[in-house]
Amino acid sequence: MDVQIALDTVWVLLAGMLVFFMNLGFALVESGFARAKNTVNIISKNFIVFAVSTIAFLAIGWGLMYGDGNALIGLKGLFMVGGADNSPATGEAYQGVYSALGWAGVPLMAKFFFQLVFAGTAATIVSGAVAERIKYVSFIVFSFLLVAFVYPIVGHWIWGGGWLAELGFWDFAGSTVVHSVGAWAALAGVLVLGPRLGKFGKDGKAHALPGHNMTSAMTGALILWLGWFGFNPGSTMAAEPVSISHIIVTTNLAAAAGALVATAVAWKVLGKPDIGMTINGMLGGLVGVTASCAFVSMGSALVIGTIAGCIVVFGVLLLDKLKLDDPVGALAVHGMGGIFGTLAVGLFAQDKFAPGTTGNGLFFGGGFGLLGAQATGVVAVGAFVFAVSMIAWMIIKATMGLRVTEEEELEGLDIGEHGNRAYPDFVQTETVA
Amino acid sequence: MDVQIALDTVWVLLAGMLVFFMNLGFALVESGFARAKNTVNIISKNFIVFAVSTIAFLAIGWGLMYGDGNALIGLKGLFMVGGADNSPATGEAYQGVYSALGWAGVPLMAKFFFQLVFAGTAATIVSGAVAERIKYVSFIVFSFLLVAFVYPIVGHWIWGGGWLAELGFWDFAGSTVVHSVGAWAALAGVLVLGPRLGKFGKDGKAHALPGHNMTSAMTGALILWLGWFGFNPGSTMAAEPVSISHIIVTTNLAAAAGALVATAVAWKVLGKPDIGMTINGMLGGLVGVTASCAFVSMGSALVIGTIAGCIVVFGVLLLDKLKLDDPVGALAVHGMGGIFGTLAVGLFAQDKFAPGTTGNGLFFGGGFGLLGAQATGVVAVGAFVFAVSMIAWMIIKATMGLRVTEEEELEGLDIGEHGNRAYPDFVQTETVA
Amino acid sequence: MDVQIALDTVWVLLAGMLVFFMNLGFALVESGFARAKNTVNIISKNFIVFAVSTIAFLAIGWGLMYGDGNALIGLKGLFMVGGADNSPATGEAYQGVYSALGWAGVPLMAKFFFQLVFAGTAATIVSGAVAERIKYVSFIVFSFLLVAFVYPIVGHWIWGGGWLAELGFWDFAGSTVVHSVGAWAALAGVLVLGPRLGKFGKDGKAHALPGHNMTSAMTGALILWLGWFGFNPGSTMAAEPVSISHIIVTTNLAAAAGALVATAVAWKVLGKPDIGMTINGMLGGLVGVTASCAFVSMGSALVIGTIAGCIVVFGVLLLDKLKLDDPVGALAVHGMGGIFGTLAVGLFAQDKFAPGTTGNGLFFGGGFGLLGAQATGVVAVGAFVFAVSMIAWMIIKATMGLRVTEEEELEGLDIGEHGNRAYPDFVQTETVA
Repeated sequence: MDVQIALDTVWVLLAGMLVFFMNLGFALVESGFARAKNTVNIISKNFIVFAVSTIAFLAIGWGLMYGDGNALIGLKGLFMVGGADNSPATGEAYQGVYSALGWAGVPLMAKFFFQLVFAGTAATIVSGAVAERIKYVSFIVFSFLLVAFVYPIVGHWIWGGGWLAELGFWDFAGSTVVHSVGAWAALAGVLVLGPRLGKFGKDGKAHALPGHNMTSAMTGALILWLGWFGFNPGSTMAAEPVSISHIIVTTNLAAAAGALVATAVAWKVLGKPDIGMTINGMLGGLVGVTASCAFVSMGSALVIGTIAGCIVVFGVLLLDKLKLDDPVGALAVHGMGGIFGTLAVGLFAQDKFAPGTTGNGLFFGGGFGLLGAQATGVVAVGAFVFAVSMIAWMIIKATMGLRVTEEEELEGLDIGEHGNRAYPDFVQTETVA
Repeated sequence: MDVQIALDTVWVLLAGMLVFFMNLGFALVESGFARAKNTVNIISKNFIVFAVSTIAFLAIGWGLMYGDGNALIGLKGLFMVGGADNSPATGEAYQGVYSALGWAGVPLMAKFFFQLVFAGTAATIVSGAVAERIKYVSFIVFSFLLVAFVYPIVGHWIWGGGWLAELGFWDFAGSTVVHSVGAWAALAGVLVLGPRLGKFGKDGKAHALPGHNMTSAMTGALILWLGWFGFNPGSTMAAEPVSISHIIVTTNLAAAAGALVATAVAWKVLGKPDIGMTINGMLGGLVGVTASCAFVSMGSALVIGTIAGCIVVFGVLLLDKLKLDDPVGALAVHGMGGIFGTLAVGLFAQDKFAPGTTGNGLFFGGGFGLLGAQATGVVAVGAFVFAVSMIAWMIIKATMGLRVTEEEELEGLDIGEHGNRAYPDFVQTETVA
Repeated sequence: MDVQIALDTVWVLLAGMLVFFMNLGFALVESGFARAKNTVNIISKNFIVFAVSTIAFLAIGWGLMYGDGNALIGLKGLFMVGGADNSPATGEAYQGVYSALGWAGVPLMAKFFFQLVFAGTAATIVSGAVAERIKYVSFIVFSFLLVAFVYPIVGHWIWGGGWLAELGFWDFAGSTVVHSVGAWAALAGVLVLGPRLGKFGKDGKAHALPGHNMTSAMTGALILWLGWFGFNPGSTMAAEPVSISHIIVTTNLAAAAGALVATAVAWKVLGKPDIGMTINGMLGGLVGVTASCAFVSMGSALVIGTIAGCIVVFGVLLLDKLKLDDPVGALAVHGMGGIFGTLAVGLFAQDKFAPGTTGNGLFFGGGFGLLGAQATGVVAVGAFVFAVSMIAWMIIKATMGLRVTEEEELEGLDIGEHGNRAYPDFVQTETVA
């Protein structure tokens, strides 16, 4: 076996492990930003969701996404990664039913693992937005549907050789495929679920329901920052030294800019450098650069992170105004950040960083063509994911129920849903809803 | 130096780091599942145990395990990895006293580091089962003895070219070598120590002593899941792309199946999806597939994880019935899971995944030969480790004492053993034993 | 592109990620060792500092450190890594303005990322020592100055081909460049800031102000131990199998020895095995072996760790006697440990481990030459960093102010500086200062 193949495999697997580790990052950010009485529920959701995603992607999602098919879905190699495949053969030598990944010179199982951890990420984005009121079993069912059907269908359009790929839409590591998909699905859930008790007063004003553990939130945030060093550079699916080095730097610059700008803006607007805004600004920077990390310069990455950091601060404030109750700000970070990041490819891409892919974006003389394709993808993915998710949420609501009882919500979901308490040895304050 | 050697070395070291990181996973799972008043003691044990293991394995264990010797122990190259060795030369070209690892084409120090972190894992398994009542110094002494003598002797039988290896016993990444050894040593400790005050009432019923921090427990659990991606695929000790990709997928499938099945069974049996069962089910799935991860199909990995998840739930309940007080469920996860995982090689192995190793197991037409060898190993290792550990625990008890005083146990070990409190700024509930 | 270059790049990037992850380690150790009321402030500092370091090193620091220049500073390629460079070409083939790294065969962006995470580490060392009384904005400003100017100037002297490199001073992974620099800057800050309210009584005795979360501290400590496996072996900036394997083992041995010895000494001196001393002893061992990890034997690494572990225990006690209030012991760990580690090269180095570099140290027949160079570097760096930092701290104090008000310090910095509370759902004890 060729050494380059072995090296590519090591790189892809290690990057995949970093993305897997993001499950812990999301679990800690989300539970830290929520109240102590719902901690067991939140971390249980974030824990089980990767197990659910594993089964859903293995059984159905993988084939729908990467199996050969038509412009809309994959039709071959569906169950249990069961199709013919002679990976790590590439290019002309590739023979199998997963042609859309025929360019990647690693074994089939390495491709599957890396794509699986991405699918899991999309599902875990939903969990934060619907936290503190959703029934555990209903979340599990929705996650299964998302990873088995919704995520892979969009994924097929973009990464599986479908119609958006044909159109010239580019999303390097998933600002749309992963982050927007998760956010649109979450938005539908937030609408169907309604806000937490006590979030909006009778006067219509939003009340802060402060998170119970900033140490958790910060820990999760740094784990996510680390995980993105697998998420973005790993999406090369090959150990190309110049590319992966470039991508890790653009990724880091956008994160740093997002954190700094969001901190400064929050300081100015709110009067204090709120730690939640710092964390979400950093995440916004990362989501924002995810689609373009391989296609843009260091300077552009700084600008992208700066804009994304601003978007997140004002986005979080806007959600409150719109009475959309998203306990962790996921809609701002992954939704608005994801949309902006996808469009940013159309603005900031430069052909020289990845010749033969995006070409130049609007700001570098490429005209509106690329931006138009990116906008088309944003709208199409948003419409599809939101509509399908809305239907799924409503069916779940009508059949098994979606929201816990008022009593359970006030008492906390930990006891009602799990029979556990997260911190039984500590005296807790009255957190009246 | 050959590039493949360099790549293998990078892979082995990174996998070893992931296994090292499991020390944090165990520390958080164990302390999270225990009470706040014993936190400093538990995390101190989990922290110091790797330092103790380092010295014990360096001074004695490594040579006993991998030094050339007879069917029972290694006799050469004992002190300070002090034997002749021309690694990374392999096969016929290898010249040195660590022939059992002559097949691995990485430098001697890479071999030592990777084996050291495995030895440390065995020791850390013990700590959870004996938690909340053992004296700090006594635990340190036992850990030294385990890593210096007990673990490496069993290791020599299986991975060091000893009699079980000769017999055709296979344990790819250590369901027996690491997990069962830790569990048998722990079982002896649990018997000699007796249960925690208040665990079993006068009526003989088991009382729950709830863990103090589910955020910690979940964090540790996800770190262990991550760490296993080093533990299992790293045991190739080479960056063989198809093998390591296959192993990471089988490992992940067993973990997912274990988590889901244990959650479902706990939901059915206990009425709620207890987070402790979810976590232990996932760990059971991982322990269960550790011996066979390189030898079985994806489908078999799912079945193994499913069975292991069930075993853990009923195993934890059984421990209570048997009045064995194991605060974290380590005996069920590592003991029962380890035994099952070892036997699973004899049931599910398929020659095609690693030609020239296990051959086929019982379910794939291989007859009872392999299963018999596996069962022999299970019994022999269990008998040896349990007996020797029992003697060691009893000598420690007779000489330096093993258990803290009743007063100290009620007050918590943190103050008595360490003079520290884990959370002095928080008001704690009365956790009467 | 050559496979070895790709492999080297993967290794350097992954090692860099591990060093990045140390930001979380420091955040958790520092916040765990401080009081709950200052948690948001401490973790915010540790979080934002890497973002600040990213901008500072990108804009100024990198060029000052590695740009071609004179014996004191780099003068080329300053802004935005903007100099000519044909990496990964090496040796004679290298053409560019970053000649000091011309030996490393990885792309420029990989060099930049790896050096950036090191710069960030130096800044994060400061944060612990000045914790619980410094204004957030003032810390941010100082961190910027440190990473933009102070750290890279010293770095140029040693790693950038400057006068100490010419003199024959060796610091493999940064006992001086990173750790001592951070500690000298911190010492100046501690002097200008003064002790926390309540730290020293009217009788002049030091009062313990216990840390609020030992779980955090231990988690951070194990993350730092892990991170050092990137910090030290990664400093090869190449996947040289024998070197990186050797370095990971010497690093681990020093950490283990430091932890064990500090625990034992604390047990003897203080009466109990204090967990803070265990953690700081481990860190001291790591800092101590950082300069020499590539140049010394396993036995020497054990001796270095042993001495460093002692130094840290007595150093922490000495700081109290000197009325230097360092909440986390950073001055002992990084300052005294860093000085000792730098001198240890002059004592324990052996030519055979890295022929053509250090030659032999005093204990291996090399005479006083190397030790003299090391001592020169210690003094020069200490004098420069302390003096410049003192000036910077005093200017900050005179202009924007350095310390929060007494009221804010008593109430905790979380509310005053950030408007957040770290743990609002938990009842907290009165921690009167």
